[in-house]
This record gives sequence, structure tokens and C-alpha cells, in this order.
Amino acid sequence: MPLSNRIDTAIARAVARGAAAPAPDLLGRALDYATAPGGARIRPTILTSVALACGDDAPAVTDAAAAALELVHCASLVHDDLPCFDDADTRRGKPSVHRAFSQPLAVLAGDSLIVMAFETLASLPDDHAARAMRLSRHLARRTGMPGGICAGQGWESEPRIDLSAYHKAKTGSLFVAATQMGAIAAGQDPEPWEELGARIGEAFQVADDLRDAVMDEAALGKPAGQDGLHHRPNAVTELGLAGAAQRLRDILGGAIASIPSCPGEAMLAELVNRYARKLAPLQAMVEPGE
Amino acid sequence: MPLSNRIDTAIARAVARGAAAPAPDLLGRALDYATAPGGARIRPTILTSVALACGDDAPAVTDAAAAALELVHCASLVHDDLPCFDDADTRRGKPSVHRAFSQPLAVLAGDSLIVMAFETLASLPDDHAARAMRLSRHLARRTGMPGGICAGQGWESEPRIDLSAYHKAKTGSLFVAATQMGAIAAGQDPEPWEELGARIGEAFQVADDLRDAVMDEAALGKPAGQDGLHHRPNAVTELGLAGAAQRLRDILGGAIASIPSCPGEAMLAELVNRYARKLAPLQAMVEPGE
Repeated sequence: MPLSNRIDTAIARAVARGAAAPAPDLLGRALDYATAPGGARIRPTILTSVALACGDDAPAVTDAAAAALELVHCASLVHDDLPCFDDADTRRGKPSVHRAFSQPLAVLAGDSLIVMAFETLASLPDDHAARAMRLSRHLARRTGMPGGICAGQGWESEPRIDLSAYHKAKTGSLFVAATQMGAIAAGQDPEPWEELGARIGEAFQVADDLRDAVMDEAALGKPAGQDGLHHRPNAVTELGLAGAAQRLRDILGGAIASIPSCPGEAMLAELVNRYARKLAPLQAMVEPGE
Repeated sequence: MPLSNRIDTAIARAVARGAAAPAPDLLGRALDYATAPGGARIRPTILTSVALACGDDAPAVTDAAAAALELVHCASLVHDDLPCFDDADTRRGKPSVHRAFSQPLAVLAGDSLIVMAFETLASLPDDHAARAMRLSRHLARRTGMPGGICAGQGWESEPRIDLSAYHKAKTGSLFVAATQMGAIAAGQDPEPWEELGARIGEAFQVADDLRDAVMDEAALGKPAGQDGLHHRPNAVTELGLAGAAQRLRDILGGAIASIPSCPGEAMLAELVNRYARKLAPLQAMVEPGE
């Protein structure tokens, strides 16, 4: 089955867990709404690709890891959109969860998705207990405090931001989780995979900054110009449009160079190249003279 | 060391995790503020007491389980106090987290505490992997959807509440988690321990309803009369003060009767009796003629 089907199936299975018990209907619907249809599913795609590149000897573990990672990402989108953060009315081209449901349900949906992520890993059969624990530990480290996406968002409440820690935690951490959890799911050492995740995370951040600077809300599917509005640090403000586009090319080159030697090395390089080709129109927009 | 010291030490160790890395200071302080000084630590006390009654053959597992359960409870208090839920200005006799810090930091503190709970379990040594996974699964089931405290809070957004599911999920679930996780931590089957947890949860709910009806904010350490204000179902509204007090006595009797046969059976019965004696002044307040 194509990778995107495999990932969507894993996520749907995780979210459907326990649907037989009596549950509050609106919160259940908010969970479905927050998780499907998904965005590009880029984090679980990277995770599954790394697992495949490493042999994918326990596909059920890979699927649980991919679903868990995406659920945490979806939770972060739901909470980041809340009025006390970005106050975003739209997400993925439809009303954000607190606009479609309510603020209480958005808070609870985010909480439930975080719990569901760890439940998905903990529900793996006992013979995978050691890998499941390791996955859970890595996911937690990249999600909470002091170095995960919660910490990243937390930096925005500080009077003085540690920019490197902020970017690493806010955007980088779930990409590092993606590459490292992919390796763990396939029984490999996660350490050599940290750099690839970090570089993809940086690329994603710079691409997002470029999009935020040149596209409008309709094209983005979410409010544009949020960084300027919230005085958040941004590669375009720092380097200009052309400078940011060049930085993006450099990072993607570095990402390919950092791929650890493994059976699927060439396949992973092609994945990064495909991502770079997708960004080409964006780069053309900001470098019209080239 | 006394039980309360053991539990506070376990919680402090869980929250201090990774304090060496660069982290957003305010969010870190919000986590400390939300977890210490604690309330009665009743859930981890029950968990540890059940583990002790079952032999407590792996104290590090018991401590991690007790800390994880209390962290989830603290997270739920932080989120429940938010303006979109109870809008509570005080908690445990001091300003609630969103009042002392901010709404964004309260949302993030709750999220981080949930993650930290699962991280604490996942950080146990590999030779405890099977128990850690099982604990993680039980904690998740009693925390998220469809039957955990998130679901319980979610029922309050429904046009029609399933009262039994609501009470079971909102208050009962973490008490069931307490008794069952105590058994799992000591390597025992959790099933026989469900009823004791459920009954303690019911007792706690009825006692809370009584307190809410007869005490003021200063004595409670949090806003009084919240159930009436939010039109939440309540044992006092349903049965009257004396009826609710009688129900409380019946439930505690049933709790003692339900304790599974184990080496620490008498010790657990004494724990429930001690709790009942603590509630005696409250019962006297509502039954002045007896």
C-alpha cells in the first residue's frame, strides 16, 4: 500500500481506539476533525521512510510510532490556534477546532490527543515493550519540557528568548523525533539520525517563514503574516527573501549529506530532493530575477 | 521514610527531570508551582498503599507510577481552572496557574505535565519495560478519551449528559487508576482492584459535593458553589445534605468490603477508615441533630 495510505490507516486506527464505550460525542468529533483530513503528514512520512530505510522489521511498531507522532503534532496545532496563542480562525483550510467546536473542546481535544499518542505506543504487544518504551521516552522528550514543542511555545512567554533553543524546540524537535523514532521502530540506534531530523526541521522553518512572508491566507489555509504580528523571530526578517531562499538550499544539501549509511540511503536522499523540488516555485517567487 | 515524604520525593524527581538543559524559565516555574506544595496527594497515596499491600517488590516502579498519576491530576487541575472551564482564581489556597502566570503558560504547563507523566513511566529501566507499558496504558485509559478525565470534562459540553459515564470518567477514573496502577506496579493483576478505586472515587465525589455545599472559599482554598453555578449534577442537589452524608457512609463501607484479599488488606481497610474519620466533622456539619 502507498506510504500515505499506510500512515492514514495507522492514524485512523489510533483515533478510533475504544469507540465502543459511551463517550462524549462532541469531543469525539473534535478528535476526528483535528486529525483528518490531515495536512502533508510530513513527520510520520519521514518517520516511516527512515524505518523503511533501516529495514522496517516490525511494521506494527513503525505504524504506532508514526501515528503517535502525528497525534502530538495535531494536538500542538489545536492548542497553538487557541485565542491565548495565535488566535487562528482557520487551519488546513477549514475553521480551527476552537472555532468549529468551542474553546473547552479544543483544550480537551489537544489533551486527549497527547494522551492518545502515548496510549498508542503503550498498546503495542508486550514483545515490543522495550522499543515501545524507548519510543515513548523519545516522543516525550521532543514534546514536553525542557526541550520539546511545549518548551518551544513556552519561550514565546519569556522576556528574553534564547533563539537557538526556541527554534530547536518549537520546530526542530518533532522532526528529530521523526528520524530518531523511525530508527528506534526498526530496532536501530537513534543517535546517528539526530542531525537529519534537525536539518529537515530547519528547512521546514525557513520554508514556513518564506511562505508566511509571500503568501496570503487563502493559499496558506491559515492566517498569514503571523510572525510579524506576534514579533516572532523569522529567517526572512533576518536574511531577506533571497537570503532565506539561499539558506533553504544550503540546509537541504546538508540534510542529504547527513543521512547515515543504511540500506535505504538513496531512497531517503530522493525524499529530501522531492521536498526540495516542491519548494522550487516558492523559491522562484522570491527570486524573480534568477 | 513516611509515605508522604516518599511520594513528594518521587514527584519532585519527576518534575526536576532535565533541569540542566536550557529551558523557558517561566514555564519551568509554572510546573513547580502547579505540583508543589501539593494537596492531600490522595491518589498517589492510594496507589502506593495498594502497591505496599501487594508486596511492593519494585519500589522504583511504584514511585514512578505514583508520580505519573499525580502529575496527570495536577495537569487536570491547571486546565480545569482555565477561564473557558471553571475560571477559578484560586486553587490549594493560592492563585490558580493562569492567574499567577498567564493563560498561555497554564495551557502549556498542563500539556507538559501530561507528557512528563508518561515520560516518567517510559524512563524506568528496560527490565521493568512490561510493567511500565502496562502502567502507561492504564494511565492513558483513565486520562484521555473515551473514558478518562478528559472525557469526563468533555461531557460538560454535551447537550445531554450521561450521568453515570460523566461521574465515572470525571472523578472515578483517576481513583481506579490509583488502585489498579498500584497493583500493576507490584506485579499483580489489576482487575480485582477496580471496584475499590471506583468506590473511593464515588466517596470522594460525594464528599466534594458536601464540601461545596457547606463551606466557603476560604475554607475550600478554591471557589465554592461551582457546581450550582455551572449546573453540574451533584449528590446534595439530588439527595439533600443528610441523604448525601448517608450515601457517603454507605460507599465507604462498600469500599472496605471490596478490598481484595492480599497481605496488606487490614492496612488498606485502616486507610479507608482514616479517610472516613477525616470526613466526620463534615458529616456532623450537615447532620447537626444526630
